[in-house]
Amino acid sequence: MLGLIATMRIQDGKTAEFERVFLDLAAKVRANEPGNLTYQLTRSRAEPNTYKVLEIYSDEAAFKAHGASDHFKAAGPALGSVLAGRPDLEILDGIVGA
Amino acid sequence: MLGLIATMRIQDGKTAEFERVFLDLAAKVRANEPGNLTYQLTRSRAEPNTYKVLEIYSDEAAFKAHGASDHFKAAGPALGSVLAGRPDLEILDGIVGA
Repeated sequence: MLGLIATMRIQDGKTAEFERVFLDLAAKVRANEPGNLTYQLTRSRAEPNTYKVLEIYSDEAAFKAHGASDHFKAAGPALGSVLAGRPDLEILDGIVGA
Repeated sequence: MLGLIATMRIQDGKTAEFERVFLDLAAKVRANEPGNLTYQLTRSRAEPNTYKVLEIYSDEAAFKAHGASDHFKAAGPALGSVLAGRPDLEILDGIVGA
């Protein structure tokens, strides 16, 4: 199991557009990626232009399939147009029960 | 909906004990808290003594119920004995689809 915290900073005035694009992507992730267990968009309370996506994948292969998916690639340009810099991706190893 | 990233740094030599205590707590959270949607322990790849719990709750009340639960309080002393300082809690607002 693999966890990911994706931190994205959005340009001023573009948060509504970002949320629209991202929620559309999230729906496609949930519909098309059985190896994705969690894909939740959240917004920082400290920095309203900063969003964090809490992501959990069943394994490394599921994570790679996500990045290679058509729906993820298709969302790239629209996301790129509202981001204020590169996303920060923190990959974490999931700890599961015995 | 509410997200939380709980970051915990563990004393050297105490990570196995921490994982044992935390996984026991996680099982009780899943069994007893219908408002908890995600409660996943992960371990940093950059800092092996650092763990991050990715948590998602249906609403603020579910988050408060978690903190007030008997099983969460019961795990306090055992977790406290292996932590290397106070946990860092980042509360995030969940963004859900229209």
